[in-house]
Parts: sequence; structure tokens; C-alpha cells
Amino acid sequence: SKLAALFEHPLYKVPIPEVTDGDKLFVVNPMEKFSLRSSGSDEWVSNSKAEMVLPTGKTAYDTYPSWLKFHVGINRYELYPRQDPLMPALLKDLATLKIVSSVQKSGGTQLKLIMTFPNYGQALFKPMKQTRDQETPVDFFYFSDFERHNAEIAAFHLDRILDFRRIPPVSGRLVNITQEIRDITTDKKLAKTFFISPAGNVCFYGECSYYCSTEHALCGKPDQLEGSMAALLPDKSLAKRRSWRSPWRRSYHKSKKAEWELNPNYCAQVKETPPYNSGHRLLDLIDMTVLDFLMGNMDRHHYETFEKFGNDTFLLHLDNGRGFGTHSHDEMSILAPLQQCCRIKKSTYLRLRLLATEPYRLSDVLREALASDRL
Amino acid sequence: SKLAALFEHPLYKVPIPEVTDGDKLFVVNPMEKFSLRSSGSDEWVSNSKAEMVLPTGKTAYDTYPSWLKFHVGINRYELYPRQDPLMPALLKDLATLKIVSSVQKSGGTQLKLIMTFPNYGQALFKPMKQTRDQETPVDFFYFSDFERHNAEIAAFHLDRILDFRRIPPVSGRLVNITQEIRDITTDKKLAKTFFISPAGNVCFYGECSYYCSTEHALCGKPDQLEGSMAALLPDKSLAKRRSWRSPWRRSYHKSKKAEWELNPNYCAQVKETPPYNSGHRLLDLIDMTVLDFLMGNMDRHHYETFEKFGNDTFLLHLDNGRGFGTHSHDEMSILAPLQQCCRIKKSTYLRLRLLATEPYRLSDVLREALASDRL
Repeated sequence: SKLAALFEHPLYKVPIPEVTDGDKLFVVNPMEKFSLRSSGSDEWVSNSKAEMVLPTGKTAYDTYPSWLKFHVGINRYELYPRQDPLMPALLKDLATLKIVSSVQKSGGTQLKLIMTFPNYGQALFKPMKQTRDQETPVDFFYFSDFERHNAEIAAFHLDRILDFRRIPPVSGRLVNITQEIRDITTDKKLAKTFFISPAGNVCFYGECSYYCSTEHALCGKPDQLEGSMAALLPDKSLAKRRSWRSPWRRSYHKSKKAEWELNPNYCAQVKETPPYNSGHRLLDLIDMTVLDFLMGNMDRHHYETFEKFGNDTFLLHLDNGRGFGTHSHDEMSILAPLQQCCRIKKSTYLRLRLLATEPYRLSDVLREALASDRL
Repeated sequence: SKLAALFEHPLYKVPIPEVTDGDKLFVVNPMEKFSLRSSGSDEWVSNSKAEMVLPTGKTAYDTYPSWLKFHVGINRYELYPRQDPLMPALLKDLATLKIVSSVQKSGGTQLKLIMTFPNYGQALFKPMKQTRDQETPVDFFYFSDFERHNAEIAAFHLDRILDFRRIPPVSGRLVNITQEIRDITTDKKLAKTFFISPAGNVCFYGECSYYCSTEHALCGKPDQLEGSMAALLPDKSLAKRRSWRSPWRRSYHKSKKAEWELNPNYCAQVKETPPYNSGHRLLDLIDMTVLDFLMGNMDRHHYETFEKFGNDTFLLHLDNGRGFGTHSHDEMSILAPLQQCCRIKKSTYLRLRLLATEPYRLSDVLREALASDRL
């Protein structure tokens, strides 16, 4: 396969920095039963979920469920290894494990659910809101575009192909909204919004600030609804995160422009402002720009990092539902950071060049990667 | 043309009752300058609009603008005559007269505008909200369906073909939303909702209870937007109307059913209830049922009559924007009044039979009528 060949290519076999305990998000104590230590502190943080899920008497890492292995593997440089033997199991779990609980996730503008598996793993479910191939209307602003479940899936694969590994794993999944949401939810507000449509389909709309009304209900056929299931990152109480406002954030206003849209020398001031004035943060941000350009995502107002790693760490590329909205328009303004700062990591540049060559054409490789998804 | 031949058919040449002064909505006093007398009272009601619009010194009916002739022609039996020499001019005026004012019409759930012409005529503008051929999604309820401007146009022609003449004339029109709405409106709330879309088109969304938000903005190309222009009926201060709740109204609730949906003998009680227990009101309602079935309109919760004519008059078929929503589904439940009461006017029955014959096939005749529209 092209994807396997790509990962074997010399450009992709560049060694990754050695990961010491200090570079890990969690250090596993082999003496304790399934507890995780936040390696930044001296205290042992007991992960009650982990304790409850694993068979008694075993302590070995390989008895961990895949979600916990994923959490334990997160380090300063990446969310998961380049050739991760765990990935197929993790993606399969997201797509197939029994769902024992579904509740709305607060925050954000559009409806999403937190789903829990019997092994205490959790996933963020984003339902299909429009047909898969529907494009963003030309008169829509980036901030009122629908979120696309298939964009979340494709973004994960694109990020992985770009050798970034900064997006948590995502699987497509066909969910039975009666049995896997309505019948098991403890979220009364959510439960109240279920109804049967005139066509006899089961529908719900939830509570949120955008598009949560009968007119925008999500309907199964008759109760099967596809969506994306993203592996949740470790709970914020175990691994604090820091949210950063992107310097190239758009105005989120119908007529106002952001400073970077008016000032072609905008990068000069960003380069002097911490954290962009030292280390590789600016280059990391330009990596994110490349990812967002390739998926046409104009909605990257913030990004996050794990607080533990300070400023010297990768940027999390969360929330990609507004990517992949247009089939044949490249939104050049997304590249503003690259264009205005005129710099890019050499490794990223070389990889992009490789992905432009016939044997590894990005669209072919991405298509191949997506073919492995369960939807 | 099939339409002209149809109107010459013996079934359509049935004479209409003689209209006396008492059957007219207004009686024109040839001595007065352009004032209208509400013929039910002894007082002369001065129509200030009419006074202002007409050249001084003339009193003859044929100096009236077409909208005023339309108002004057309304009688107990119909809104306009079967073969109305005025109709082409009236429809042309709606489609072409300069628009001197545009304001939102309050009431109702979706955005509509009242537009005024230099001759003081007025029209109700309903903008295009979705592409012309978009169908009602199967999971939508009748009460959250978008209103279709093209349904308003087609409903007028269908009603006319059925020989009912109970829908005010409607023309399609391409409106320049910058010059003909934004620049001339005195409605500040409306003006505030204008913006330029990312594609550079002029958009607005107005204020209303459904679909009035950025996500549902109405956008021109770049500022041309099509819509329907319906001739307004005489102001309610001149010609009071009465609103009647349809006995076969739906529940307007996602899961509740109306009584008529549960009780097959529902008609028995309607037949005993005024005004359906005398005269031809029930048959008139069944005429409306036929019209609504043919256009697939499930949203006929009320109908109106002119108060002056008491119970012995035709039913106004206003607000048809939710018709014509499905290409290939006949909603049989709309026919419930016909089915449950099992009666229909002989003239309607014979006309329907005629419209099912090859030379006058309804869809051909309607297509021909619609071809004359300016959109």
C-alpha cells in the first residue's frame, strides 16, 4: 500500500527524539495497580477508572485497554508513535465497543456527545448533520458553517499522513440513536429532545447555541445515524492543558477584519511576542497552518498544548469539523502565517514535496487511509 | 393554448351569479373623486391612498391603477372574474413597477416584506429561501418546512385553473436587494441585518421567529434575489376579514394527533357545527382541501373570509408557501375532509375530471400558466 510505503520512506524514517520520563505525560508505576503518576509532580495520581476496569491481580501495561495505552503513550513530541501497533485496536474500539453512556458535552456551539465504553474509555461523538458530500454554501461565514463528522475523520488521517500526530484518533461509526443514545442517556435535557419524524425516523436535537432546534434535528434511518468517534484525551484533572489564541485568528465578525488581514508585516510583531520569539513555536504554528490549508479549515481560533510540557511541545490540532467544506476552492488566506513569515520546517517542506510526487500523491494516500475507516 | 381552450370549455363557461351592489366589497361612487364606499354601511369611506395616487379631475374607473381595480372588483363570489382583462396588467405591475418602499411584515413565522409602488399599490414579497427545486426533507414537520416563493406563484395559477379565484394574484420577480430593499427601507431593524457574504454577495436575514439568523440569510447574486410578489388585499380597515380555524387543522405538535386523525366519524360532528351546518361552507372547505391536496400543502390551519359577506361567501386561500414541497409524494391525509365527509361540489368534481383528460391535463395546463410568469 502507498501509505505503508510512505511510512517506510527515508523522509518519514527520520528518528524521533528519545523520550525520557520527563517527556511523558504519565509515568506508569509498575508496582502500583494501574495508577498513573503525573510525572511533573511527586504525587501518584490514582486513576480510578483504570482501577475499575482492569482484571484484578494484573499490573502489566499490556493488560491496559487501548484507550489507556493511548493516554500513557502521549509525550512531549506526539500523541502516538509514527508506526503505532496500538492504532488498529484503538480505532476498532472506537468503532465497535458497546456504548454504555451518552451525554451532551457542554461548550462549543454545536451538539456533540461524550460516549462511554464498558472499559471506561470515552469518545467524543459528532453526528452527521448534512449529507456527506454537501459543501459549505458560498455565502456562509466560516463561523456559521456546519461541523462535518467526516471532516473530523479525514483530519485525523491527514494529520497522520503529514507525520504530525497531533490529532487524537477518530473512527467513523454508525450509531443506533435509540439504543445507544436515547435509551441509555442520563442527560434529561438531551432525552427530552427526541421525537419521531413524519417519515418515521428517530430524531433529536439536543441543547446548544447553534442549530439545536426541530428544524435542525439529527435523524436516523430509522435510528441508525453515522458520526465520528474521537478518542478523548486524558481528563484535564490528570493532564492540564493550556489554550492559546492563534495570532492569525479571524475576526469572527461579518465585516470586521483581523489585524493580520490588513498588515502584511504582521509577522514581524508576532515574531517578537512570546512564545513565538523563541524555540520552534512559530514553525509549529506554520505546520498547523499547512494542515488547515490542506483541509480548508478557517476556524482555527485557538490551539492547545499540554501544560506539563511548557512551551517546548507539539500543538494539539483539536476540532476539525469545519475542514473539508469545499471541493474545489483553495482558501489562500489560511496560508497567511506561512506567507507573512515566509518560513517552514525543513522536514515539513520535504514531506510536502514528497506528497506531491506521483507515487505518494497526497490525495491517493489520504483516500487509501480513509478506505480503512469503518464508515 | 390549452389554458385559453380550457376557459372556453362548457364546464368553465357556467355563468357566475349576478353580482349586485350588496355582493361587492366596495361600491364606487361615480360622483366622488376616487373614494370607496364600504357598501355594507351608509358612510363613505375615503381611501386616502386612492385620492393621492390618481390625477386630479378624473373620476372614471379606468383611470384607476390596476391594484385599485382589483380591489374594486372583489365580490362575494370571487377575487377577480374568470376571464379578467385586468389580470395581465396586474401581474405585470407586480413584476415591474418601481419599488419605493420595503418594510418587514410582522406576524407569521418567516420573513416577508411589504413593498410599495409609486402608484400606492402594495405587494407582499416572499424571498427565495432555498433553490427552486429543493424538496422538503422527509424528516421535516409541516410546521417547520421552509416557505417557497415558487409555491406562492404556482398556487395562484393552480387556484385559477381550478376556477376558484380565491388566491390574490402573484408574480415572480427578480429584486435588487441593495436598491430595492436596503437603500430604501425605513425599517431600521431590517436594515441592520444586511451584510456582505464571504462570496461578496449582499445578504440579509430580518427579524422573525423562524430562520431569521446569519445561518439562514437570504443572499443575492450579487444582489439580485428572486421572490414572489402577491397583490395585497384591501387594507383591513376598509374591508374587515374574519379568520376561521380549520376543523381539519393539524396538531402543530411533534407527537400529538388532531381529533380528525383519530376519529373517522369526525365529519358528523363538523356537519352539525356552525357554520358548516348550513349553506355551502363545508363544500367550500372541501374545495380548499382539493386545492391543498393538489399542491401538497399540510399547513392550512386557518382560512379567511371577508366579514362583509357573512357566511355566504368564498374562502380566501392565503399563505401557500408550504405547498409544492415534494415531487413524488401525495399526502393523502390532506384529503381527510373529502374522505370523511364524502361530498364535493358537482362543479369541482366535473372540473377535476376534465383536468384529468389528455387535452386539459392539469400538469400541462399548470405548466403553460407558469410559463407566462416573469421568473
